[in-house]
Amino acid sequence: MDTPSPADVSGPPRIAGPGEGIGADELALAARNHGMPLEALRYEVTPPGLHYVLVHYDIPAADAGAWRLTVDGLVRTPLRLDMAELRALPSVTRRVTMECAGNGRARLEPRPVSQPWLVEAVGTADWTGVPLRTVLDAAGVRPGAVEAVFTGADHGIERGVEQDYQRSLPLGAAAGDDPGVLLAYAMNGGPLPPQHGHPLRLVVPGWYGMAHVKWLRAVTLVARPFTGFQQAVAYRYRRTPDEPGEPVTRIAPRALLVPPGFPDFMSRTRLVRPGPVHLEGRAWSGFGPVTRVEVTTDGGLTWADADLAAPGGERFAWQGWHSEWEAAPGRYVLAARAADAAGHVQPLEQPWNRGGFGNNLVQYVPVLCA
Amino acid sequence: MDTPSPADVSGPPRIAGPGEGIGADELALAARNHGMPLEALRYEVTPPGLHYVLVHYDIPAADAGAWRLTVDGLVRTPLRLDMAELRALPSVTRRVTMECAGNGRARLEPRPVSQPWLVEAVGTADWTGVPLRTVLDAAGVRPGAVEAVFTGADHGIERGVEQDYQRSLPLGAAAGDDPGVLLAYAMNGGPLPPQHGHPLRLVVPGWYGMAHVKWLRAVTLVARPFTGFQQAVAYRYRRTPDEPGEPVTRIAPRALLVPPGFPDFMSRTRLVRPGPVHLEGRAWSGFGPVTRVEVTTDGGLTWADADLAAPGGERFAWQGWHSEWEAAPGRYVLAARAADAAGHVQPLEQPWNRGGFGNNLVQYVPVLCA
Repeated sequence: MDTPSPADVSGPPRIAGPGEGIGADELALAARNHGMPLEALRYEVTPPGLHYVLVHYDIPAADAGAWRLTVDGLVRTPLRLDMAELRALPSVTRRVTMECAGNGRARLEPRPVSQPWLVEAVGTADWTGVPLRTVLDAAGVRPGAVEAVFTGADHGIERGVEQDYQRSLPLGAAAGDDPGVLLAYAMNGGPLPPQHGHPLRLVVPGWYGMAHVKWLRAVTLVARPFTGFQQAVAYRYRRTPDEPGEPVTRIAPRALLVPPGFPDFMSRTRLVRPGPVHLEGRAWSGFGPVTRVEVTTDGGLTWADADLAAPGGERFAWQGWHSEWEAAPGRYVLAARAADAAGHVQPLEQPWNRGGFGNNLVQYVPVLCA
Repeated sequence: MDTPSPADVSGPPRIAGPGEGIGADELALAARNHGMPLEALRYEVTPPGLHYVLVHYDIPAADAGAWRLTVDGLVRTPLRLDMAELRALPSVTRRVTMECAGNGRARLEPRPVSQPWLVEAVGTADWTGVPLRTVLDAAGVRPGAVEAVFTGADHGIERGVEQDYQRSLPLGAAAGDDPGVLLAYAMNGGPLPPQHGHPLRLVVPGWYGMAHVKWLRAVTLVARPFTGFQQAVAYRYRRTPDEPGEPVTRIAPRALLVPPGFPDFMSRTRLVRPGPVHLEGRAWSGFGPVTRVEVTTDGGLTWADADLAAPGGERFAWQGWHSEWEAAPGRYVLAARAADAAGHVQPLEQPWNRGGFGNNLVQYVPVLCA
């Protein structure tokens, strides 16, 4: 008789065939998770419910009253903290732009089969919590620790591996001031919503979303680099299945445009009236401030500098930009392109990899003026 | 030279071909809009950000301070009310389960091409506002009025027709106690979020979402049934393109199950351990209380009654149900089926129509026990 094994619920990684439409599995993820409608780029801080959400397994039924964060492994004093104890520690609030590492995946050709984001898996929030270093200092990190491993309560199976969601950070990133990791318990001044990690999550400013472990239960200091599924198997830049690949870490620069005018329901093509059109959007990078945003209305044949807001006090929050356009009747393709202080520029050709990570190819917005 | 016309941004209605995957246009809608992750059925009131959202065009940049609701047409005293005036009127709070008329569309075979919902376009909220009849009484509806037309600020093009989103209700439904229509300005005790109609929306308990006009700007009493796009062209039950069809109105009964155990990331197939498994979910109908929920673990060969919570004081809020299952190793297909007091039962074969509306075919949840 066929006795099932847990591994039977997983299929192998897969790249879609030429012209293959989005499948039932990708659609199920797209219906659960959600991006930020691009008109919400108008908000400096993304309103609740418009910030992107990606949940690997299920949103856990978390009880904040019973929640405990353990800090253990290579520490002098293992800790077990409840939410009241965490809230009693000095807190900070940071404005952080967060983006899914898979943003742009469904635009890749060929398309890696996973959560099929176009360009909208982003959002900015004010996160309040305790600096991770405060808690690590209280526990006393022992010599020999090289990484901190973070364990969430989100439980599932992926590629045949049953797991709690786990990721690690090098000790320098976890315990230092750069990027200044938070144990966050509030979002935009209110409690964390369930889908954003209630009651406690990690926030790793400047890093892609996979690092910001939600429903955080444990921080474990370890003597060797973590090789769990989400660190060594998933979230690697690979072009072939067998290479170890480079780890996915910081957010590559991206500029997005508020699509101007108004849309057709189904095609999402935009219509603008002839005359002056105010173009605006936001741009960000996890490597440093955005230093330049260029705009095109002819699909990339010519580019012009946009007016870019100076970086504010928040190093990892997006920056606004705007540009004026005199639209005449016709068909256009608009795009914006960001460059950052570290010298990265958004590519005009896709940065393809098997996982579909970090695709910051410029966004193209077809517009009809009539 | 090719001078574009606004109609050029729209394509014709379309039914997907056999085996045709979800297209780029459907994916763009799925990435913007979002369903309720099914584990959120655990909440009696859906937390902010988990309630389903469907926006036809763009979320308007609404300014609550400058917002005015006009009430005109066949009334004795046309009104122009600001938000402070509306908030000064006696308010009520109603718990209402809302569902998109297109919920289930992407499960239809063949599939109408539009927002590709599976089963998750639902949510329940506490809506606070002014009964519409209060405002209609203040304006004084004149003899001869047969419908109230509701105009939102959401502007776009659909099938070549440029429009503000508009829907109507028969005068009896708009001005009476059944279903008790609200002009709502708060959701779950807080201001309406932008995507839910900030600062003012209609709530029509028991009706599918298309009736609950968001970003509501005007109520106009008219002498003849409204024939606008969203009333006479869209949201009709039709099997052929040329028939007038029946209007989409109240919500057909549906039961949904919290998928038990834990999922595989990509396939969403569930894994449970052998032993007792608590099955639970919610059920609702816009035609009256749910009177029975049946559960199957063998894909519909056999059904057993679930324990159904009695309807509460809120006629149009979902009812909880649960059922205990002794799982043994093997493969299962779980489903639940609701029946309501009006005699409607969820179908086991799809109720196909060209718009993909009202597909309340039972949800099937594949589960592996190991």
